[in-house]
Parts: sequence; structure tokens; C-alpha cells
Amino acid sequence: MTTWIDDRWYVAAWDSEVDSEPLARTICGEPIMLYRRLDRSLVAMRDACPHRLLPLSMGIREGDSIRCRYHGLLIDSEGRAAEMPLKNDPVNSALCVRTYPVADRHRFVWIWIGDPAKADPDLIPDLWPCSSAGWTFDGDYVRIACDYRLLIDNLMDLTHETYVHEGSIGQPELMEAPIETHAEGHEVVVTRWMPGIEAPPFWRGALKQEGLVDRWQICRFLPPSNVIIDVGVAPVGAGATVESHDQGVRGFVIDAITPESESASHYFWGMARNFDVDDPGFTARFKRQQGGVFAEDVAILEAQQRSIERNPDLSLRAFNIDRGGMKARVVIERLRKAQLSPAEMPPA
Amino acid sequence: MTTWIDDRWYVAAWDSEVDSEPLARTICGEPIMLYRRLDRSLVAMRDACPHRLLPLSMGIREGDSIRCRYHGLLIDSEGRAAEMPLKNDPVNSALCVRTYPVADRHRFVWIWIGDPAKADPDLIPDLWPCSSAGWTFDGDYVRIACDYRLLIDNLMDLTHETYVHEGSIGQPELMEAPIETHAEGHEVVVTRWMPGIEAPPFWRGALKQEGLVDRWQICRFLPPSNVIIDVGVAPVGAGATVESHDQGVRGFVIDAITPESESASHYFWGMARNFDVDDPGFTARFKRQQGGVFAEDVAILEAQQRSIERNPDLSLRAFNIDRGGMKARVVIERLRKAQLSPAEMPPA
Amino acid sequence: MTTWIDDRWYVAAWDSEVDSEPLARTICGEPIMLYRRLDRSLVAMRDACPHRLLPLSMGIREGDSIRCRYHGLLIDSEGRAAEMPLKNDPVNSALCVRTYPVADRHRFVWIWIGDPAKADPDLIPDLWPCSSAGWTFDGDYVRIACDYRLLIDNLMDLTHETYVHEGSIGQPELMEAPIETHAEGHEVVVTRWMPGIEAPPFWRGALKQEGLVDRWQICRFLPPSNVIIDVGVAPVGAGATVESHDQGVRGFVIDAITPESESASHYFWGMARNFDVDDPGFTARFKRQQGGVFAEDVAILEAQQRSIERNPDLSLRAFNIDRGGMKARVVIERLRKAQLSPAEMPPA
Repeated sequence: MTTWIDDRWYVAAWDSEVDSEPLARTICGEPIMLYRRLDRSLVAMRDACPHRLLPLSMGIREGDSIRCRYHGLLIDSEGRAAEMPLKNDPVNSALCVRTYPVADRHRFVWIWIGDPAKADPDLIPDLWPCSSAGWTFDGDYVRIACDYRLLIDNLMDLTHETYVHEGSIGQPELMEAPIETHAEGHEVVVTRWMPGIEAPPFWRGALKQEGLVDRWQICRFLPPSNVIIDVGVAPVGAGATVESHDQGVRGFVIDAITPESESASHYFWGMARNFDVDDPGFTARFKRQQGGVFAEDVAILEAQQRSIERNPDLSLRAFNIDRGGMKARVVIERLRKAQLSPAEMPPA
Repeated sequence: MTTWIDDRWYVAAWDSEVDSEPLARTICGEPIMLYRRLDRSLVAMRDACPHRLLPLSMGIREGDSIRCRYHGLLIDSEGRAAEMPLKNDPVNSALCVRTYPVADRHRFVWIWIGDPAKADPDLIPDLWPCSSAGWTFDGDYVRIACDYRLLIDNLMDLTHETYVHEGSIGQPELMEAPIETHAEGHEVVVTRWMPGIEAPPFWRGALKQEGLVDRWQICRFLPPSNVIIDVGVAPVGAGATVESHDQGVRGFVIDAITPESESASHYFWGMARNFDVDDPGFTARFKRQQGGVFAEDVAILEAQQRSIERNPDLSLRAFNIDRGGMKARVVIERLRKAQLSPAEMPPA
Repeated sequence: MTTWIDDRWYVAAWDSEVDSEPLARTICGEPIMLYRRLDRSLVAMRDACPHRLLPLSMGIREGDSIRCRYHGLLIDSEGRAAEMPLKNDPVNSALCVRTYPVADRHRFVWIWIGDPAKADPDLIPDLWPCSSAGWTFDGDYVRIACDYRLLIDNLMDLTHETYVHEGSIGQPELMEAPIETHAEGHEVVVTRWMPGIEAPPFWRGALKQEGLVDRWQICRFLPPSNVIIDVGVAPVGAGATVESHDQGVRGFVIDAITPESESASHYFWGMARNFDVDDPGFTARFKRQQGGVFAEDVAILEAQQRSIERNPDLSLRAFNIDRGGMKARVVIERLRKAQLSPAEMPPA
């Protein structure tokens, strides 16, 4: 059994990564090829010709089909053989490639690895800040040689910023604000609410206003392996609450994580924001800074993965600060074991 | 049990690769050292000193013997200890290195990996065009990280030329000529006879004559893992037939394949021809072109091998075009299981 | 079961390699971090934070403690948690990292991997020439990708010098002197005594005197995996004997070997001498030369290791010249199986 949930939507790529030429990417242990039809609709199929297993991603695009580069078997965009290597040979209609449910949503391409009959698009995690009016969103992709759950642990605990990001965004004050952790159905929420504090420079610049602020950092885990972090400030007295806080400036750190294997992950990260939305210079500067911060995490996470492999007699321990990550792991474990059908899912 | 036939002759090297200094090469999973005695006769032995297993190929040549570079044990060319590290110590006559039957034939060095009692030189595959009067032969060596049977599949099916060699020798017309496949004892023959066609530029230049030609491509698999492809053209009306076609110009693409391991192969390739035999410029140009074509195959075959390893739930399928390769695999399987003694072999 | 003795002192590092910043080194299969407290005393502990297993060697030194770079757990130099990531959280006193007995002796840092209750400092091998008045000692470190026992074999047999060190220190005459091998408790001694010979240039220069000399080479194996080689010359008639030979010039080749894994070793080598002790130029020249000689051994040993792995059907054989190495392996095997407590050890 794998360490991930099969019957779920995973981010396979940024929407802009997938185009007419096939993109090869191993997702949840399966070699997969992604491309778009002429009408821009998505195709995801196993990246192996059903004839002699050459990766189809090495093939030649013909209309919406892919012709294998080895012997020329033509596979249509539904994964069915459309033409044999010898054009006059009758096509064996049983000859097909496994295709995967795939969807464009929130600027990402989502894929469903498990039972396709269960692939309800309504189960795609609701990353609404990535695609809502009044918001702008950009980010990047990096592969990390670590178990995807280590990255979830990392994102559900903001105390690591003090040490991992000492030279960039770490601030000892963050450690002092109390944290509240709770579950909402299959989601896990870690809330840090900092009322009436001095706004740090980044947020003061975004708010364009002097004075004390209420500040928040709310990490939300959405299965199978996404974390969105609601961050921002509002002027004191504007009425911001944990439940509702659109009175100031607000952003979401978006983290979509997809297992490549038991020991490597695809990491799609970005920032959605509702301020300075028409300033591409802000977007570019912030993306560069955020990339630098995440590179610090990559170094730690890959060292942690190697250390886990080299110390098979030792186990991870959880402290108070790990409550969010631990609860997320409990959710993963529960869903993984049950492989719940959509009908069995509690309402979001 | 290995995937190859043990009791057979395999090409270990080009004849010119083996000289007085030992050549180390792993053949059918066994580390082997090859060299020539002062009289130019061949030696093949396990590449490990019987004392402390240092590769003997790192040793020092002394007459026809090899002195181990570690402690100086002297091994004669029959694999027997001839002198101990301390010269006065009596030699243990039981101390020996496994030697392998080895032979010079058809410009190659052949080795017999299995039971040496069965190593009948008459069983060396008859690659006569490599060493016959009126013919010239040259080629090269490349290691390919793939199962040797994938390379046999490749060579016994010429339809892949259209796609793999699209930019070099591929021609859509080749796909239209009918193919006939049959077995001859332990050999498999795939014949494509193209009567009365326009000669392609290469063959017109070789024939030095205008007009329509009969053209042929006849692939022959010779166990354990050799493929020779009889190619050429003769003027229409000259009387060329599938059985006899020396009326025009003729060549043989020579492919001798030797397993290194289950997932890597030695590939010795070349071209023998009976035209322009005294033109070394032709030889050099053709070898360079052929090397470029085979580099295209190497890229495909190594991608195929990796894909097979990454998709353990999928199997190779065979179409009509694979009939030659499939029949060759049946022969390999039959001989591999039986490990037939020479007496059990049907006449060639 | 490992191939080495657990309940013994191994060299972990040169004393000068270990300082205030942690040094990471895998010893007998265990990832370990070494550093010195402010008072220069030694600390050795498992190189993994007990919280999320990040290597502690990536951490931040605070006083004598190490703060983990991930979440800031503070580990004191006894391996106990001293401060939680959230400073106000109560410290779990059961939270600790395995520490290892460690000692400074003979210019090396020694570590005890097995049962710490048995870690008697009197069991540290007596490498007295490295730290005695009237002697000087220097050397270096190299990692070798081979089983540590292959290196012991190499050092307990001086006949390999003729071939491995043909271009450097090898001399055919060495092969002619008789060798005597015997055990002394858990130690093994190989003695070569060469009375009344012409001194080779190196030793004549060291002796600063003309005339015939008595020369010796006495290899001594000290468990778990150290070899010291007593070498030197004395003028004929000065009274040097195998038992007592301080009449001329004398040196010790020091070899401390520590398994990293079953197939890789740490090799700490050097030369201690009682002549020209105040000449650092001599020390530097000799160290450079000795490094070149050992590089020749590294090439042989790594080739031997690979050959052993590639020839699983073949075994190492022992000749007369291997008697010293074989006896050392017998001692290792005996101690390894018994994991003798100090009380069970015969007097040195």
C-alpha cells in the first residue's frame, strides 16, 4: 500500500506547463504524459506505448493523437489505438492506454490517480484565491527529494521559520503568539491571531497606512496534500475577526504537493493576494523572494529525508508545534485506509 | 536462470580490440579478461586473481602469463598458477582461474560461456560476409543499457526505420512492401522483396547503372543473438531471386549482440559489402553514417528499457511487424531451457 | 550481525579534526556528530535530532549545546533536551540523543560504539609512539570504498609492496627476507628481521652513519582494526634485537582503520619517528610521499572490493604471506562473536 491517498485529485502541473507537446511526469509512482488537445482540453495518460512500452511522450503529435516514435502506433486522445504501425492492419480495439481523469482548475492541472468512477470534479480542493476576481496569483514548481508528508509537516508548523528562515523571513516574535489547532471535517486549521501589533514592513507597505494592526496566519490543510496559508493585516478597530478578515490586505500562500514516489515530491507553490493586483513588478519581486525562502526549506527537507533513511532505528516525535502536521497525517491515514468514496465524504 | 543461452558462442570483441594487454569486459554477467599470447592465439579467463580477487586485467604481462598487480601470483595463459608471490613457495597445482573457450572467426573474437566440453567451433554463427574473398567489412562497438532481446526485436523489424530513423534512412515506402517471416531450424528469416522499383540514391550509386531494380532486405536471426541483414539491388531482368541474388550489388548489415547483464548489452555492428571493396573512403563514410543511425536506436532502446523498469505492471505486446522478433525470442527460449548439446542441434 | 567488533574503541577522527563546530561522520554504520565543549572536552552523539531527525550537525552551537536548525530544540552536550522549540513548553526529560563514550588519546579521537558500560579507557589501543616524548607524529585521513578487513590484510602483508608500490617503495629484496608470524593475546605480530645488510638510502640518511645495519619491519595488529609497523635500522654490533632495538633510528607506520559501512572505511594513517624530530620539513616531505604510496593502495583496494562484489561465486584464498592478515581476521571473528567484556580480555 502506498503512503498517499489514491482516490483524490492531485496537482499534476501548472496550467501553463501543459501544452500541445507532451509533458512527462511521474505522479504517485505512475509515469504519466500530459498534453492539451487542439481545443485546449486536457489529456493525461500512462506514458508507455501499449505496444513496446516506449514513452509516448517521446512521440509525434498528430492532430489530437500521439504517434509512437518507435513503430508508429497511433494513440488517440482517449488512449485508444487509432492506427497500427502497418496502416492497413486492422486496429485492435482492445488496444489502449490507461487515461486519467484530469481537470483545469485554479490555475493548476489536476489529476485523479485512483478509481476513475469516483473522480468527482467537486472534490477538487477549493483553492479559490488562485482564481477569484479581485485576486492575482503566481508561483513556481520545484521537485524535492523527500516524502510528501515531511513537506506538509513543514507547512503546518510556522515555528520553523525562526531557524530555517533565520536569514530571510524568520522573526523570534512569531514564536510568542499562541496557536490554535482544530479539524474541520477532513481539513485541519492552525490559527495564529496577533491583535493590536506593530505591522512588519512588508505588511505596512501593502496596507499603505500607519498604525497598529490585527495580523493573522491561518494554515489550512486540504486533503490529499495541499496547504493554504491565509496571511494579512487589518487596521485595529476595522472589525477583522478570525472568521472574517477582509478589512485590510490579505494573501494566501498556496502549496500544492504531489507525491512522485515514497521519497520524492512535486511542489507547486505560489502567492495569491488581493492588493496591488495590477502590479506585475510586485508579483515578480515577491516570487523571487518566496523562491529563495522555499530553497531554504528544500535544503532542510532533503537533509531530513536522508537522515530518516540513515537512521532506521529512530522515529519522528511530535511536540505541541507539530499538532497541525500530526492532525493532517491522521486525516491522510484515515482517508488512505478507507479510500472513501465521495458519498462517504462529510460536507466540506 | 539467466535470460540468455549459456551454451553458445558470443562475440566478446572485435579481433582488433584484443592484443597483448588484457581487455576487461563483462560477458553474460561474468567479468572476463581477454588477451593474445605472443603467437597471437587468444586467451579468455575470469578477471579475478584466485588469491585475493584483484582483477587480473590490472596485472603485468610476462611472456604469455599475467602477474597479479597485488601480490605477484603468476597465472599462465591456461589459467594455472605458475609462481607464488614468494618465488620459493611450492606452487599449488589446484590453484587456477576459469578459462573460456575462445576463437578468432569472421573478424570477431568469440567466447563460449557455458559448458566448455560443448564448445564446438563449428557452432560459431556463420557470418561469412565478414571474412570472404571479394567482400570488405568494417564497423564499430557500442554498449547499450538495455536487455539484449530488445535489440534483437529492433533489428528483426524494419518498420521502425520510418519513425526512429525519420531524419536519416527512414522511408515511408518501406512500410508498403510485404514481409514474409519463416524459421529455418534455429534461425529466423524476415524477407522483404521489392521487385521492379526505382533504386534509392544510395543503391543507384553503388550499382552505377540506371533503370529499375529488384531490391531486397532479408533479416536473419542466428542464435544466440546475432542478426545479419542481407540488403542490395539487382537490375530488373538480371534474374535475382529471394534464394539467389548476386547479380547486382549486395551488402550485409552485421549485428552481433552480447549480454553484459540482464539490462545492458554489447553491440558489435558493421557493414560487409561486395562492391567498391577497394575504396576505404566509402568504408569510412558509410561507417560514420551507420554509427549515426545506430545512435538513434540507442536512444530509443535505452528509453524503452527504462520505461519497462518503471512500468512493472505493463507487458510488451506483439503485432504482425514483430513476428520476426517474436520467433527469435521463441528460439532463444527453447534453446535456453534445453541448453541443447551440439548433437541435439538440427543441421544449420 | 556486523562484520566488525562493536564493543571496542575506534578512531573517529584526528584530534585536530574535531573542534567547536560539529563534524559529521558515519562510524560503524551509525551517523555521528563530534564536537568539543568550551573546555575542549569531547562530545559524540547520534547525528539526528530526537524531534524530526534533522542532522544535529547542521545545527547552531550555543554554549556547549547544539540548537537544531529546523525547530530549535536545544540539546545539551550530554544529549539531553534543554529547551523546547517553544521556550515556555516544559522540557520532556526523557527526550534525549544517544551519546557515545569518546576520548582523546595518542592524537586521535576515539569512540566506543557498543555497550557504553564496557567502555574502559584502558582498552584504547596503545599507540604510544604517537604521543611519547622524544617522538614526533603526523599523518592524514582518507576514505576508502572497501571492507575494512581488506585494508588490514594489506597492512599485515608487506610482500604487496613489490607490485603495488613498484614505482615508489617496492624492492624485490624485501621478498627474500624470512617472515615470522605469531599471536600475542589478541594481537598479531609479523616480524621480518634483516641482519647485517646495506641500509637503503632513506634509512642511511636517517641514521647519518655509514656501514652495515640490522633492519626490521614488525607489523602489529591491535584489535579492533589498527596496525602499527615498527621500522628502522641500527648499526651492526650495536646490540639491536627483535625484542629491543632503540640503538639506531626507529619509526612506526600508524594505521587506524574504522568501518564506515560493510563496504567503506575511514583510514587514518601517519608516521611516528624518533629521529629528526625537530625537522618539520622532513615531516612534510615524508607525509607527502607516504600519501602517494597509500594512494596506490587505495586504487588496489577499491578495485579488489568491486571485484569481490562482481564475483560472488569466488572466495578469497590465503597463502603463506597472508598468515598475518588471516590471524588478525581470526582475532576479529573471535572477539566479534564473543563481544568480550573487558574482564574477559587477557592482559595485553
